[in-house]
Amino acid sequence: MTYDFTAINNIKIEAGLLNSEALSTLDMGSGAALLYPEDMPECWVESVSSRINPLVSVRLPPRDACKTLSIYSHVVETLAAAGIQRSGAVIGLGGGAVTDLAGFVAATYLRGVRFYAFPTTLLGMVDAAIGGKTALNLAAGKNLLGTFSPATAVWCDPKALDTLPRPVLREGAAEAYKHGLIARPDLLDPILRGELENANTRTSLIQAAMSVKLSIVERDPTEQGERAFLNFGHTLAHALEAHTDGQLPHGEAVAYGMHWAAHLSKRLGKTDPTKTDLTMYTRAFLEWQQPTMLHGLCFDQLLDFMKKDKKNSGLSGIRFVLLEKLGRPYLQAIEKDLLEREWLLYREELIEIGLYSE
Amino acid sequence: MTYDFTAINNIKIEAGLLNSEALSTLDMGSGAALLYPEDMPECWVESVSSRINPLVSVRLPPRDACKTLSIYSHVVETLAAAGIQRSGAVIGLGGGAVTDLAGFVAATYLRGVRFYAFPTTLLGMVDAAIGGKTALNLAAGKNLLGTFSPATAVWCDPKALDTLPRPVLREGAAEAYKHGLIARPDLLDPILRGELENANTRTSLIQAAMSVKLSIVERDPTEQGERAFLNFGHTLAHALEAHTDGQLPHGEAVAYGMHWAAHLSKRLGKTDPTKTDLTMYTRAFLEWQQPTMLHGLCFDQLLDFMKKDKKNSGLSGIRFVLLEKLGRPYLQAIEKDLLEREWLLYREELIEIGLYSE
Repeated sequence: MTYDFTAINNIKIEAGLLNSEALSTLDMGSGAALLYPEDMPECWVESVSSRINPLVSVRLPPRDACKTLSIYSHVVETLAAAGIQRSGAVIGLGGGAVTDLAGFVAATYLRGVRFYAFPTTLLGMVDAAIGGKTALNLAAGKNLLGTFSPATAVWCDPKALDTLPRPVLREGAAEAYKHGLIARPDLLDPILRGELENANTRTSLIQAAMSVKLSIVERDPTEQGERAFLNFGHTLAHALEAHTDGQLPHGEAVAYGMHWAAHLSKRLGKTDPTKTDLTMYTRAFLEWQQPTMLHGLCFDQLLDFMKKDKKNSGLSGIRFVLLEKLGRPYLQAIEKDLLEREWLLYREELIEIGLYSE
Repeated sequence: MTYDFTAINNIKIEAGLLNSEALSTLDMGSGAALLYPEDMPECWVESVSSRINPLVSVRLPPRDACKTLSIYSHVVETLAAAGIQRSGAVIGLGGGAVTDLAGFVAATYLRGVRFYAFPTTLLGMVDAAIGGKTALNLAAGKNLLGTFSPATAVWCDPKALDTLPRPVLREGAAEAYKHGLIARPDLLDPILRGELENANTRTSLIQAAMSVKLSIVERDPTEQGERAFLNFGHTLAHALEAHTDGQLPHGEAVAYGMHWAAHLSKRLGKTDPTKTDLTMYTRAFLEWQQPTMLHGLCFDQLLDFMKKDKKNSGLSGIRFVLLEKLGRPYLQAIEKDLLEREWLLYREELIEIGLYSE
């Protein structure tokens, strides 16, 4: 389950990549549009702009505030006014939200132009920018619009992580940890030891986490089967994001969601009782990540949001990705009654570790 | 250059098809959304609804008023609220605008659901609903958003044409005539003889016109080459539509655009002077179609709109599809000066046949 980075040339990870002359070798055709979030450090925008010379740059609201139809509309009208052509390109420089939006723009503007993803967050590198999913949110839920459109190239520069606030870095670690849980248990300890925060160790660790996703996506690009395992922790995560009106960052929501899925895995009893309790791993991650505290959640509301998850295709109960053991995911529909009983225990534990209050 | 309709089962044309039990054999998965324009006769909506049992129906503003991002937003939020799932379907019942929008919705909602096109206009049958292009308009121009996403199935019922006002039928005839001009000159006379308006002759004539497009699209689905020939007449057509703020119907704009392209073809001199002047054919069509009269056009404004056409990828001049002779299209970039000189002659002729006033 490792991905051969040398075999493909469209995904690169290398310190200094976004500040190198290599950028000017990327084919921007008749001219590019550069999309980036307003909280992106100016030096990164400058570094990329000076080598790509975009025809137009569009500054976006931060995080998921850019993944709306109204921002999409603003962006595509701006591209049209700037004369970006079918033979041109769209570049997304920033976190997962920006690359999700930029990918959707590139997939739909003039029925598709080149798309370059330059993820600058850990979450973008190990998850959002790779694998070909593009997305916008609707009022009804996250990522309800999108396409499967692989980027022309994804270039990651781990130096970009130096400018991230620590909570944002640890937020993104959730997706790397998730890849460890579903396929590479050897990644879990290094992440908790802080190797993603260390310039000497992070590149190979990020690469290993990316390789889990890339291998799965290569076998199942349009989520007919195993790609769904990448949604481990995401059913509750999306519900928490909706319930908090997007206030809870995605990677923190995933950390809570993974712990919830571990709880359900344990309850459903496929887990070998002689092995270490799976919830120990997900709890250790929560304690390490220190996400924003949850409060005043209404289970029925969460349930409604979980039902809306786009993976719930005509099932009775709600479908979750669970773990038989570390590295062994499976899908399971679970009925409301069991979810409600487990929720009380889960909430109890969060209160105990100081992550929940009424 | 004929398409074998028996070899594929996803495109059907048959009188009575949308009023038959065959409809209930289409796989709607976990449930469908039916999109149709408000000017669709109630009996057609009823006929389809009663056999498909959609989970939700969305009534749309007529013609291109439905191809906006704001209507798209309304539709996808409605689908999400109604619980249309990834395993569900979207049906577009109506003219080309509705199938363009419905196709875009189906291609992007939950990253893609089944899409059924039931075109009820001539323009929809011979052009918009077949070939896999979906589209929305932007303020900056027509069809600037979209995807290449073939429909799961396209079902045409020529009986739907009985309810169309005559000008709408003759409008749609422009695309059939265009297919004749670029590839099947034998279709031209039957169209001018009114065979598209006759229940006994229309089905085979529509099928022949569809086959021109389907053959081209089969060889070049994403418009890397010859598919561009299908845009014969469309460069000026899109500019006229923009200039008149969408007031000029598409098929009428195409009729004017074909005549303009014939003028340019003649001027560029590839046309064999010993053969019949190409402008005779396109003028005969204008006289038969009797489109809305043009007035007060500003050439510089038209030029600006023509430059924005998405086929103009980094060329000097504006790219047109021209005809060497009947059935022999080619691409040619033309400089502004020549366009301006020819415009005066073209306008002169329109005034002469009563189709232009200042």
